[in-house]
Amino acid sequence: MTLTTDDPPVSPAVRRSAELEQQLSLDPGRFRVLTGDRPTGALHLGHYFGTLHNRVRLQDLGVEVFVLVADYQVLTDRDVAERLTEHVEGLLLDYLAIGIDPARTTVFNHSAVPALNQLLLPFLSLVSVAELGRNPTVKDEIAHSRQSAVSGLMYTYPVHQAADILFCKGNVVPVGQDQLPHLEVTRTVARRFNERYAEVFPEPDALLSAAPLLLGTDATKMSKSRNNSIALGAGADETARLIKGATTDADRHITYDPARRPGVSSLVLLAALCLGRDPHEVAAEIGNSGAAGLKRTVTEAVNTRMAPIRARRAEYAQDMGYVREVLRTGNERANAVAEATLREVREAMGMFL
Amino acid sequence: MTLTTDDPPVSPAVRRSAELEQQLSLDPGRFRVLTGDRPTGALHLGHYFGTLHNRVRLQDLGVEVFVLVADYQVLTDRDVAERLTEHVEGLLLDYLAIGIDPARTTVFNHSAVPALNQLLLPFLSLVSVAELGRNPTVKDEIAHSRQSAVSGLMYTYPVHQAADILFCKGNVVPVGQDQLPHLEVTRTVARRFNERYAEVFPEPDALLSAAPLLLGTDATKMSKSRNNSIALGAGADETARLIKGATTDADRHITYDPARRPGVSSLVLLAALCLGRDPHEVAAEIGNSGAAGLKRTVTEAVNTRMAPIRARRAEYAQDMGYVREVLRTGNERANAVAEATLREVREAMGMFL
Repeated sequence: MTLTTDDPPVSPAVRRSAELEQQLSLDPGRFRVLTGDRPTGALHLGHYFGTLHNRVRLQDLGVEVFVLVADYQVLTDRDVAERLTEHVEGLLLDYLAIGIDPARTTVFNHSAVPALNQLLLPFLSLVSVAELGRNPTVKDEIAHSRQSAVSGLMYTYPVHQAADILFCKGNVVPVGQDQLPHLEVTRTVARRFNERYAEVFPEPDALLSAAPLLLGTDATKMSKSRNNSIALGAGADETARLIKGATTDADRHITYDPARRPGVSSLVLLAALCLGRDPHEVAAEIGNSGAAGLKRTVTEAVNTRMAPIRARRAEYAQDMGYVREVLRTGNERANAVAEATLREVREAMGMFL
Repeated sequence: MTLTTDDPPVSPAVRRSAELEQQLSLDPGRFRVLTGDRPTGALHLGHYFGTLHNRVRLQDLGVEVFVLVADYQVLTDRDVAERLTEHVEGLLLDYLAIGIDPARTTVFNHSAVPALNQLLLPFLSLVSVAELGRNPTVKDEIAHSRQSAVSGLMYTYPVHQAADILFCKGNVVPVGQDQLPHLEVTRTVARRFNERYAEVFPEPDALLSAAPLLLGTDATKMSKSRNNSIALGAGADETARLIKGATTDADRHITYDPARRPGVSSLVLLAALCLGRDPHEVAAEIGNSGAAGLKRTVTEAVNTRMAPIRARRAEYAQDMGYVREVLRTGNERANAVAEATLREVREAMGMFL
């Protein structure tokens, strides 16, 4: 896939992200990545190719990675966090299965790190209500919220994110384009804190995801809440069944054309990602085999690629004591890091120590 | 002073507060009081007769008292908290001087208790942005703020107060009438948390101050920031000088008539409070001695009443190591209490423990 003259010009954010990618390879020890998930359900293939795989890559490059299980943030768009322990354990199994190594990567949950959460207070003093109300991502999330009224937690969400990223002095944050305004709040908080008190925080940079977007089996956005995703932990048979039910179209000749053939193209893309190949080539090989042929190829590609991950997941699931210990150890480390940062913050602010 | 038929009917809040006062005397062990100050300057005689004296009374009744030094809340209406350590130490000296006993009363500072501050996150999920924006006290504080823009910290202020009160399961909060809407937010947070998760928090009651309002030496509201107050720690000569410069009027006959003679009446009231007498009687005794006679009486009453407090304050000031230790010990206790409450909260919410 080469850029054609029809492609839009490369944005500054994309250019900065590409430069950052180079620096990460050259000098990984300089960087600390903060990333994470809300424990609202099973992680799926969209997560895997969109973000999870990238975390393991960064970890293996030698970058220090912090993975946040954002349990409080479940409540930003719903009243009660349901089956939290189950969802948290699911995330832990997924992380371990894909190759997150607890010896190198710190996995922790939000509600277990008070010193991180305390940063919300000084940080709230650095942003105005007008700035909070203007944030486009929050506006969008409010529009899609399951709640009748916008909660104070949703409204202050970008400031929690600043605390999540800055507590460990994270300087790289893997995000999608839609999350850039959030990250801008974090950068603003860091800059204002440093100007007002003392140089404590880095201004973190966005590492934009290079992965193309996978759609769900109904050819709309893949989402935990839409029942259109294939979970990382799904079995081979379940995978086959889900792909069999996926939306395609009546044209027997398979092509990769996301704009005009979203359903077919997303399946082609899924196979290509699993096979590590170009989607146009994969489509060409399937040729006139129609939706049935496409689905056979995709099912095999997914099940082959995921087999070792699923096997490891099943193994870890036999030893939940160990899995829970991974989180406890991560929480201890996150608490130590957060307490050290909070000490610096309180000292910089002239608090009574 | 008896109620005349011109007095307004007793409000439900006043009636509840009077009932509460009775219960506090009968069964003090059932109650836990949360109260506190922002470390923005020296405490003055208005604070002493308005709230400080009452804390010692409650402590001596056998009620458990928590005194919060609200260091983060300094930032709700200004950008930077100046001379924080000095102001915090001043508060500690005042508390010890008036008779706060660290063996019975827990004195702690806000920024030193992460588990308390963490409560802000679940609590923010229980209030809507509309509710935050509607709070009349916040509206008023915003109008008097020293900042050009309203910060997120100011906007969420009533929710921090909920955390401050509920972290120790405080069930009594001494407040002025103007603070009732704030306390209503705390009550709402407690009620919603209990309904949504589990019965963890009391719905705290307001203990309304019975003390009449002292004006400053310029006959306007006494305030740290208006240079019109007599600090608790002021010397006898300084006190005399400040009272000598106080606003009075041209009528040589001294009366207690707050509505028509605010300056004279506030001085009469100050003397009466120091002497533990009725202000009308005090005024009658001064009679035709004019402003000079009034000021002599007030100066002597203040200096006599404050002498033992000032002597203790000076003694404690010789041993700042002990004073600082009082706060450290209080912080340890507050942290233990906050961590226990946070454990309950996380368990009730089904967080991964």
